[in-house]
Amino acid sequence: MNPLTSLIDNLKKLPGVGEKSAQRIAFYILGMPEKEVDSISLSMQNSRKLITYCQTCFNITLKSTCYICNDEKRISDNICIVAEPKDVFAIEKTGAYLGKYHVLGGLISPLDGIQPESLRIKELIFRLKEGEFKEVFFAINPTVEGDSTVMYLSSILAPLNLNLTKLAFGLPMGSDIDYVDEITLTKAISLRRTLDK
Amino acid sequence: MNPLTSLIDNLKKLPGVGEKSAQRIAFYILGMPEKEVDSISLSMQNSRKLITYCQTCFNITLKSTCYICNDEKRISDNICIVAEPKDVFAIEKTGAYLGKYHVLGGLISPLDGIQPESLRIKELIFRLKEGEFKEVFFAINPTVEGDSTVMYLSSILAPLNLNLTKLAFGLPMGSDIDYVDEITLTKAISLRRTLDK
Repeated sequence: MNPLTSLIDNLKKLPGVGEKSAQRIAFYILGMPEKEVDSISLSMQNSRKLITYCQTCFNITLKSTCYICNDEKRISDNICIVAEPKDVFAIEKTGAYLGKYHVLGGLISPLDGIQPESLRIKELIFRLKEGEFKEVFFAINPTVEGDSTVMYLSSILAPLNLNLTKLAFGLPMGSDIDYVDEITLTKAISLRRTLDK
Repeated sequence: MNPLTSLIDNLKKLPGVGEKSAQRIAFYILGMPEKEVDSISLSMQNSRKLITYCQTCFNITLKSTCYICNDEKRISDNICIVAEPKDVFAIEKTGAYLGKYHVLGGLISPLDGIQPESLRIKELIFRLKEGEFKEVFFAINPTVEGDSTVMYLSSILAPLNLNLTKLAFGLPMGSDIDYVDEITLTKAISLRRTLDK
């Protein structure tokens, strides 16, 4: 096969890259210095080869335990439940959360064949029973799958008597009431708060 | 540097890939089978290494002359002038043009330091004088740079007494008069055609 066609086909496997963007990226690569192309492709292979999952929280890591689990300065009685390692990445960027994490590896979605048993729930319960956690903080997307996962987990975690919390939902900062979708606006109205004094 | 951060930085060099899409693609790559990641990165390196430019028309090719220049069935008195190899790719996909090509390697843009001398215009004139071309067909984007390039070329090609043509401009098929931009609509009005009978 023609190397250009094969490159375009390969690029289309990446998320958010359709026929047109694959073509655009492919032609751009043809014009890049060879050294830069090597650097991109090596970093793909390296990341895939070197990065593995933390034995404790299932976040991505280069070692057997990730830097967050190893960090003794993190608040150790607070555990944040997320679906994927990329959610840890997003939350860490804010600097607003200083506790530990647990990555489920997905969300319950019977239509896609993802049952509770496919997620790292057993490992979570083991950690909660062994550790001295006080708060379980759900940072899960407000979608059908996310909501059912939170509901499922909160029911099976109920006997452990922990403080269960979740992300606040409402208007995104800088948004326009006129443009925001109805479901978000409804949520923001029903969750309205007393003004801080 | 962390391999994931380095991968994200590398992906951001690609056109149309910002911080967010780079993160999304990077995390996707971590979850791909290693064989597929190797296949993507090898195809990048291969394309960059194997693909070169046709000595005659400057389209991309694996040999010294491209398959279009070598194809004796193509209409040989018709030459289509394009800015970049990707334009040849787009036109070939339509199957509506059967002549030869000449790739300029860009468009005149003094602000970006691209003068006529930076483009393959000398080579074009040589081909036009040596060959037996009747029609020079400009398939150039209708932008400021495109229009000036066509204007410049049509003035220096005037002495050669060739039939100079260009792409038709007007409403895109399937568009909505109500939504199309004013410049396009103005163009479509001033270029209006008699109905076919």
